[in-house]
Amino acid sequence: MGERVSGPEIERLIQLLARLPGLGPRSARRAALHLIRKREELFAPLTEAMQVAREKIVTCSVCGNVDTLDPCTICRDERRDPATLVVVETVADLWALERAAALRACYHVLGGTLSPLDGVGPKDLNLASLAERVARGEIREVILAVNATVDGQTTAHYITDLLAHFNVKTTRLAHGVPVGGELDYLDEGTLAAAIRARTDF
Amino acid sequence: MGERVSGPEIERLIQLLARLPGLGPRSARRAALHLIRKREELFAPLTEAMQVAREKIVTCSVCGNVDTLDPCTICRDERRDPATLVVVETVADLWALERAAALRACYHVLGGTLSPLDGVGPKDLNLASLAERVARGEIREVILAVNATVDGQTTAHYITDLLAHFNVKTTRLAHGVPVGGELDYLDEGTLAAAIRARTDF
Repeated sequence: MGERVSGPEIERLIQLLARLPGLGPRSARRAALHLIRKREELFAPLTEAMQVAREKIVTCSVCGNVDTLDPCTICRDERRDPATLVVVETVADLWALERAAALRACYHVLGGTLSPLDGVGPKDLNLASLAERVARGEIREVILAVNATVDGQTTAHYITDLLAHFNVKTTRLAHGVPVGGELDYLDEGTLAAAIRARTDF
Repeated sequence: MGERVSGPEIERLIQLLARLPGLGPRSARRAALHLIRKREELFAPLTEAMQVAREKIVTCSVCGNVDTLDPCTICRDERRDPATLVVVETVADLWALERAAALRACYHVLGGTLSPLDGVGPKDLNLASLAERVARGEIREVILAVNATVDGQTTAHYITDLLAHFNVKTTRLAHGVPVGGELDYLDEGTLAAAIRARTDF
């Protein structure tokens, strides 16, 4: 803010908020002001929620999800099909698939994708634990729900090779037109994939 | 997230983050996950910064700015011109003008604009304290740095009337082409104002 016009305490709050994804310097300032203006109703609950989260949240030692339980709620859920494992890059992707509620499977969070350019190799991802889970023999299908990016697809190929000598089927998400999507705004790759994978009407 | 896939502690954190301006439900989830992933380096400092801010930040009883001091750093700054008072709608606007560093004046934060449709009347804004400050006789110019919106201009007119019987000059910000702005993207009102207020080259 150029010359100091407010205490360093406010500056520090803004700087920390600006490190959240989706908040730039300007929106971090707006968020800090909003917090300060609504301090009675927002500051205390948020501080408390963050403290509780900080103390209680753990990474699931089985799947890599974050939860207050280890193993996490999903891994403990006995109504889920233990023979189907969905491999995702991040916990955000896991949550997105759960919101879609398309299947009641278990998950495995890689924690990223292989990316030689960024120095991310197999040892940096939860791949060893994936192989161990599959090696136990209960899993029949591994759904590779990785992003349709170059790194995502590279990772998917690596996993297919990794699991090749296990008696397990590997599948991937279908490509196609997003529901509600307008053809005119879609890239050629998606359109071509949607035509190749066309189904009977 | 439909059916519960993570503890209520995470849900609560997401819900509270989603109440910050600029964060929708999806970006609040991403922000929460980022906080959780970087919990060692981000959670503790942010919780602490929020607690410090919560305990220390007060609204300046003179101008309405937020600071850890009352009167605030700006009101205490003796190098500022006490004869020039800049009236702004919000603390965010005050900060924006300070960043611009165009003048070293004092401020008065209204806390909003008159808005009959939203039920915001003169008593809901810091107008009485503005009149009191001007009544003390030291102020020579009141710069109405309110937004160029209908409500902002309504408020500016109200303040002009309010201060009419004091020996004080009221001015407003110039309209014109934003620095770096492309004419093609500007609305007609701004262009017309910029032409009317043209200056010698």
